[in-house]
Amino acid sequence: MLLEKLNWRYATKKMDPTKPVAEDKVERILEAARLAPTSSGLQPYEIIVVKNPETKAKIREIAWNQAQVTDGSHLLVFAAWDNYTADRINAMFDLVNEERGLINEGWENYRQMLLNTYVPRDPQVNFEHAARQAYIGFGIALTAAAFEGVDATPMEGFDAAKLDEILGLRERGLRSVTIMPLGYREAEGDWLVNLKKVRRPKEKFVTVLN
Amino acid sequence: MLLEKLNWRYATKKMDPTKPVAEDKVERILEAARLAPTSSGLQPYEIIVVKNPETKAKIREIAWNQAQVTDGSHLLVFAAWDNYTADRINAMFDLVNEERGLINEGWENYRQMLLNTYVPRDPQVNFEHAARQAYIGFGIALTAAAFEGVDATPMEGFDAAKLDEILGLRERGLRSVTIMPLGYREAEGDWLVNLKKVRRPKEKFVTVLN
Repeated sequence: MLLEKLNWRYATKKMDPTKPVAEDKVERILEAARLAPTSSGLQPYEIIVVKNPETKAKIREIAWNQAQVTDGSHLLVFAAWDNYTADRINAMFDLVNEERGLINEGWENYRQMLLNTYVPRDPQVNFEHAARQAYIGFGIALTAAAFEGVDATPMEGFDAAKLDEILGLRERGLRSVTIMPLGYREAEGDWLVNLKKVRRPKEKFVTVLN
Repeated sequence: MLLEKLNWRYATKKMDPTKPVAEDKVERILEAARLAPTSSGLQPYEIIVVKNPETKAKIREIAWNQAQVTDGSHLLVFAAWDNYTADRINAMFDLVNEERGLINEGWENYRQMLLNTYVPRDPQVNFEHAARQAYIGFGIALTAAAFEGVDATPMEGFDAAKLDEILGLRERGLRSVTIMPLGYREAEGDWLVNLKKVRRPKEKFVTVLN
């Protein structure tokens, strides 16, 4: 079932600009990302959903002019925290306490350990760590799109600093790491749609230590 | 369907050491990771499946003594390429040409662009980029485990340098980035199993630009 969906999906090169994705499908794709696990449950990233045509056009200019950016009805921008701060860590631990209605000593010790480890650390190291977490949600969102029958293209080919500027991300302590247009394939215009999906064979990807 | 599975899964803290995961389930989880997309299709990581009890015991020692490492029947180690090399890039492009039975000028230009960009780049930058791709597969493997009804714990809490030594990864040009024990929850011994899954509310995770 899942494998079927993963085989169905591909990095769509041409989307049909006349076929927008229904909002309830987008909601479920976003919800899948929201439910994705992250290190210590910090969810150190946000998703910006760009529907505005002018903004998508500006983004396309700094994304190698890739047509999916404007042809897709929704462009998801995954933006990682630029750093781990005490405020951000505390906000998440406080939320957990509030939602669970309990304060646990082990959990509070864990909070202190993270504060002591992450906050003084080099911001670039923290950003890289946050970015990795965003990729977990990114992978799960791609999977969710496939379950919705929605085409989604994973894209890193854009100028992140310029995208941050267009969306005002740096002021919010965010840095874009990857983008995902959502739409429907326009098979006639897509050079990739009929080409075989190629992966390394299992024996070159997996080693088993019995 | 997918959302149900994502709600079902959690970072299992106690696994039942008497209940091994069937090999066909492990195969499908690995296949989901193999099908996961990666930047330019390079698949810049490998998965090591540790079943050997002595090796798992050694890994547990350098993983904060977390019991899932030995209680799970299979420990998946996601290990990213330590660098992008011309050999690695060419091997993947050659495989694509072979599998698709065609050579395409645009694709060959793209190969040259990657060779010119990635190979001279700082190995640490390349490793970080490869690690991010591994996290896409990691997220999808976690999802696949949930579809199999298998518990899986995403874990970064281990000494990566020591794990690389135990598994001989550096000699193979690999660096461990994250691990995932597979098994079945032992609910009585698991402090987390009955606690609410907490995520930031949607309005603090998603921004929509209409």
